[in-house]
Amino acid sequence: MHDSNVIIDGLQYINWDRPLFERARDSGINAVHVTVSYWENNRETISNISQWHRHFQNHHDLIMPVREAADILEAKRLGKLGIIFGYQNCSPIEDDLGLVQIHYELGARIMQLSYNNQSLLASGCYESEDTGVTRFGREAIKEMNRVGMVIDMSHSGERSTLEAIDLSQRPIAITHANPTFFHDALRNKSDQVLRALANSGGMLGFSMYPFHLKHGSDCTLEDFCQMIAKTADMMGIDNIGIGSDLCEQWEYSKLEWMRSGRWTFGADYGEGSAGNKEWPQQPGWFRDSRDIKNVADGLAQHGFSQEDVNKVMGGNWLRFFEHSFGPSQ
Amino acid sequence: MHDSNVIIDGLQYINWDRPLFERARDSGINAVHVTVSYWENNRETISNISQWHRHFQNHHDLIMPVREAADILEAKRLGKLGIIFGYQNCSPIEDDLGLVQIHYELGARIMQLSYNNQSLLASGCYESEDTGVTRFGREAIKEMNRVGMVIDMSHSGERSTLEAIDLSQRPIAITHANPTFFHDALRNKSDQVLRALANSGGMLGFSMYPFHLKHGSDCTLEDFCQMIAKTADMMGIDNIGIGSDLCEQWEYSKLEWMRSGRWTFGADYGEGSAGNKEWPQQPGWFRDSRDIKNVADGLAQHGFSQEDVNKVMGGNWLRFFEHSFGPSQ
Repeated sequence: MHDSNVIIDGLQYINWDRPLFERARDSGINAVHVTVSYWENNRETISNISQWHRHFQNHHDLIMPVREAADILEAKRLGKLGIIFGYQNCSPIEDDLGLVQIHYELGARIMQLSYNNQSLLASGCYESEDTGVTRFGREAIKEMNRVGMVIDMSHSGERSTLEAIDLSQRPIAITHANPTFFHDALRNKSDQVLRALANSGGMLGFSMYPFHLKHGSDCTLEDFCQMIAKTADMMGIDNIGIGSDLCEQWEYSKLEWMRSGRWTFGADYGEGSAGNKEWPQQPGWFRDSRDIKNVADGLAQHGFSQEDVNKVMGGNWLRFFEHSFGPSQ
Repeated sequence: MHDSNVIIDGLQYINWDRPLFERARDSGINAVHVTVSYWENNRETISNISQWHRHFQNHHDLIMPVREAADILEAKRLGKLGIIFGYQNCSPIEDDLGLVQIHYELGARIMQLSYNNQSLLASGCYESEDTGVTRFGREAIKEMNRVGMVIDMSHSGERSTLEAIDLSQRPIAITHANPTFFHDALRNKSDQVLRALANSGGMLGFSMYPFHLKHGSDCTLEDFCQMIAKTADMMGIDNIGIGSDLCEQWEYSKLEWMRSGRWTFGADYGEGSAGNKEWPQQPGWFRDSRDIKNVADGLAQHGFSQEDVNKVMGGNWLRFFEHSFGPSQ
């Protein structure tokens, strides 16, 4: 079934409506990993899923759910945008291992073990100490392996990430982050993590979120493609993709929810600061989904072969999802 | 795909363990509609489903989930007991229409609109006044029709049941009850209800729960088969099946939960009484699942043709489920 000529975005966080579904579909993107939950508990996450059910009913001509990798090819054939459900935190499973399968059955295919902070499963990248994968975390990794839900360590700490790579029997993902050699941010990943990820067959999705970019919003397409080329040298061409972290059409209050959830009554500025707290401005060459082809063009201009461009733009995610979604054979 | 030679029990409520799964499978029953929830809310019902996931893992050689009617034939082929998830009340959907599809995706295929008492959807058979299907109830019926979840009115009041039959665009079921002409109990159903049910293509499952039987635990097999014959004359041979309401291996405290839930701090004796409050004794010809073949033999001795025996023992349920589970074509 392999079709390397697909475009997959490994993470977006969008306040979706019909015009944005149309825009994303018309951009040539065949599937996108969407964020269904940050800090929402089981019940709240179910309400978010229910909202997606309304989207699927109301916009069935534009979008469809992706439950297995083959659905991405079906979405492409039908000219629709495939939607992959993912959670940026483990709050939907609360303290209950049984909720992994429950959320798998409700469509979740990717879950982060922690989001910036310590969770019940692992440490987050903003904690001063990373104590690694917890006792419950080890059980959750086994259960996610069993049902076929991808472990995502995008917002987790270094030690937790290395341990998750090691503990998981199936390759894991960092759906949206960049290498620290490109831009040294707490959210970006060390050479050690990237090498361990690649050695285990895992995937890195490159982020266009300005706080993850060298020079932020002023990062050039050439800078970005050079980073990809250097990472390909380090990780191999088969273990990298795009995870744009594109955020669109949200009020500032949603950014506050992402950053502060219910864990602080104060202000947390995440990757920003008190003087630079707003949603950042996208780089000019990736304003939104319509610009996804700029990235493909940029890679070609940088010297990537067409085959390698296809791998980075979606072929690698497709192959990874083929082996990751659902019980292992 | 039609195979009329299957045995299906339209309702059991069992404290399942491996010996009871073995017993039910060895009885020749191919599928059983099990009760996952009475008064449990969404979160509690999810924990009950999770417990079933453990059963499916631990006893995969004995049981399998039924999500479409074809799974029942697959269970028969594999020599396993097929498990159909159902709710005896609408408490799992709380006040949220979106939870119908959520629970459909988690496997629920049958839901009662009310259980003895007034619910958010309809009146129960023990209320002194039955005000019919509520505003939310009309929406829930439409949504259950859309996703393909069977409306069950076993414990609902007369008017609510007639209105549900009328409002539903797809045939409904009374999975476990008997005609009042046989035994006049609040839980049994009037001729008017049974005729309306049959005219709409719906199904009645005959109960062996002593409180639904003439002479209770002393009801004879011949009495029971005579009731079936008379009901077949009234409803037609294609609209009837078995819904034994077999309850096994529960403490008295579970009966209290079924009867009183959280809606009273006092004692409610349901179909029993203060002097007769315990789990009733099964009739001698149907002590448990192993005796299901007694019913088939009884029907044959009463004069039913083999074809008609097969219909009553499971063929009718199978055909009904083929048209009821999942979105309509």
